[in-house]
Amino acid sequence: MSAFANTPEPPYYAVIFTNQRVANSGDDGYAAMADRMAELAAQQDGYLGAESTRDADGFGITVSYWRDEASIANWKKNAEHSLAREAGNERWYEHFETRVARVERAYAKAMAGQ
Amino acid sequence: MSAFANTPEPPYYAVIFTNQRVANSGDDGYAAMADRMAELAAQQDGYLGAESTRDADGFGITVSYWRDEASIANWKKNAEHSLAREAGNERWYEHFETRVARVERAYAKAMAGQ
Repeated sequence: MSAFANTPEPPYYAVIFTNQRVANSGDDGYAAMADRMAELAAQQDGYLGAESTRDADGFGITVSYWRDEASIANWKKNAEHSLAREAGNERWYEHFETRVARVERAYAKAMAGQ
Repeated sequence: MSAFANTPEPPYYAVIFTNQRVANSGDDGYAAMADRMAELAAQQDGYLGAESTRDADGFGITVSYWRDEASIANWKKNAEHSLAREAGNERWYEHFETRVARVERAYAKAMAGQ
């Protein structure tokens, strides 16, 4: 599976979630939650894909892409997702920032021969 | 220095740059270029901050924040930045996606005691 999201032509929406894991806390259930949230998000109406990475210091960025604001609002209301966010706030993240943005235009590296 | 960008109240713009470094290519001048581009971007009119991370497989996400579309366009025209982008296309990145988005709303983890 590519790490890149195969998004459609803009406009669509992006949720930019930048976060710092609590230092020296080990996994503490985090990986299982993150896998489950990725799986669950992908089942939501309006989900277009996600891109996610984290460095060795525990600083991570996940960008998820959505058709519209309504699909973001629905995902936020999801009960399992809400519990995961609470645990993230209390246990897993030292700090995070969430930004909701409307993607206006996009371009990619040209493929060889194109 | 915090890894988080201290952005103002929305609206403002985000450039979401997701990228995969070429595998097994070593540094190849990349770190020096990346440091220089971060320094140069921070000097541009309309620059609001940036957040960046990369995992051990070389998959990276950098999000830079800008006051408006005009400041993004000016940064794109910068001669040194243009040369760096060309080298990125030719040498450093196996693939990348760039998305320009308008940040509509933002929220952060509540601080303890707030």
